[in-house]
Amino acid sequence: MLKGTVAATVECMSTLGEIGEHEAIKRILPMLGNHTDLAVGAGDDCAVCRLNGTGSDQVFTTDPIIEGVHFLSMENPVRVGNKAVGRVLSDVAAMGACPQWILVNVVAPPELDFPYLEKIYQGMNAVCQKFGAIIIGGDVAQGPLLELHVFGTGLLPAESALLRSGANVGDCILVTGPLGDSYSSGHHLDFVPKVEEGIFLRESGLVTSMMDLSDGLATDLRHMLKQSGVGAQLKGASIPTHGTVEQALFDGEDFELLLSASPEHTAQLRSDWNHHFGTELPLIGTMTPHSGRLELDGRVLASKAFEHFSSEKQH
Amino acid sequence: MLKGTVAATVECMSTLGEIGEHEAIKRILPMLGNHTDLAVGAGDDCAVCRLNGTGSDQVFTTDPIIEGVHFLSMENPVRVGNKAVGRVLSDVAAMGACPQWILVNVVAPPELDFPYLEKIYQGMNAVCQKFGAIIIGGDVAQGPLLELHVFGTGLLPAESALLRSGANVGDCILVTGPLGDSYSSGHHLDFVPKVEEGIFLRESGLVTSMMDLSDGLATDLRHMLKQSGVGAQLKGASIPTHGTVEQALFDGEDFELLLSASPEHTAQLRSDWNHHFGTELPLIGTMTPHSGRLELDGRVLASKAFEHFSSEKQH
Repeated sequence: MLKGTVAATVECMSTLGEIGEHEAIKRILPMLGNHTDLAVGAGDDCAVCRLNGTGSDQVFTTDPIIEGVHFLSMENPVRVGNKAVGRVLSDVAAMGACPQWILVNVVAPPELDFPYLEKIYQGMNAVCQKFGAIIIGGDVAQGPLLELHVFGTGLLPAESALLRSGANVGDCILVTGPLGDSYSSGHHLDFVPKVEEGIFLRESGLVTSMMDLSDGLATDLRHMLKQSGVGAQLKGASIPTHGTVEQALFDGEDFELLLSASPEHTAQLRSDWNHHFGTELPLIGTMTPHSGRLELDGRVLASKAFEHFSSEKQH
Repeated sequence: MLKGTVAATVECMSTLGEIGEHEAIKRILPMLGNHTDLAVGAGDDCAVCRLNGTGSDQVFTTDPIIEGVHFLSMENPVRVGNKAVGRVLSDVAAMGACPQWILVNVVAPPELDFPYLEKIYQGMNAVCQKFGAIIIGGDVAQGPLLELHVFGTGLLPAESALLRSGANVGDCILVTGPLGDSYSSGHHLDFVPKVEEGIFLRESGLVTSMMDLSDGLATDLRHMLKQSGVGAQLKGASIPTHGTVEQALFDGEDFELLLSASPEHTAQLRSDWNHHFGTELPLIGTMTPHSGRLELDGRVLASKAFEHFSSEKQH
């Protein structure tokens, strides 16, 4: 989904390569439309639309994955399929919604073996079935690289979607699982989207904001801070990680959920979570009044650091 | 949308280039899911899903357009945008639905000038606004060729969608406008999707089947015949064309609507159409009992003819 937040202003640059995908998205956002039934437009994990007369809202998202960028050539196709649909279900989960319909555009080179494509569908269907989503259409076209463009919808009670913009000063910051080392471990291909967790968290009524972690905790949290108008203080030792704290902050493609809850409700939420899932819901920091400022153990994290990082790795 | 009809069986071939996109789609169709709320799955212009409790159905479709296949490099970007969204609105129109939400994934090479992309959005927004559709999201990624993957939804009264499968033996075959010569005339870039016409035809209650014309009358009508279990007899002299009858049959990308109506209702339908739009609704043939057989002026049109054609031109 178009999420549109970037720190740098690069007005003088003009090609897509110069300005980067995030800046391109930021510039595209004002060109998108508005409508009374469009409750939340581009800028969150999903757009949220009113389904008048049903008591439900419908969420919409799309994500492309491209050979050589999001997966290696001739990667195990079942894993590629899992990742393609999993990313979209992770966006749906980040709103607290139940997955619904999926459409897939495939672009593939003519020399691609059809059985490879069949196995991609096998991977996509497997993760769909796990969460009640169904592939109902799409298209196939030939192009130089293998690409999967997955569109997904979800449903949830009207006005209950968990947004990036709902965090308040003083809220506790929590994360649903360990972060970092997603590439070398293969987690970025094999992850299970946190659909049940997203629904549980939305139904708890105790969560003030939520998003999924795809670009790394530092980058993604900064989006939440900007949209909520708050800052954040993270405690490095509390961040669950598969490697170092730096990896947890910058590696990306974790597909865990990042959320906030008021300090009064956090103990209850963590206890309910533990009772339901049998695991911890780690508390990793606090929202501060310093709008947009991200701190780790009392030290300000410059945005430069992870912008540089993100320009080296385009996920 | 996955429309899945191809005459040849090419089981021994295995790469996408060998089997072609239509055969790939045909093989993918059985891998897609099913659900009680999924009224019409892949195989029509749109998938149709029940919106329980609303009295409405929601339709879903997606179409990719790729540089060098669907438009030339550095084509006027406003026209490229018109085509990208226009194709999807044409699919929505083919069901008789009102366009609703649009999401767009852009893949573009790093050297693409951002102002070019802005003008694509200008073209997409212009055709959206004409028909009440709104771009609510999408994504941007870098790749070797410019591609636009457009996903669209629409709404219509429950169980009123006009399908490809509804034609009966004896029905009249009609088309909403002249066909052929779409490439050299630029019509394939500048066309206005027949949204108002599709809604009018659905509301008439007199249409038995409908689809949009994107691959050429001969190829597309054959899909309708297969899905309706009927044949067709076309009268060459009655087919409205911008060039020859052959062009009308085989050129493709007309984005007119092809429909059928019972012989008892056709005069009424054509008269209502003329009254409403001030134009003719040409009657070009009749549905016959010879399932799958397409005849032109009494002569059977072999499927080979346009299969060969379609393998030369991949639209």
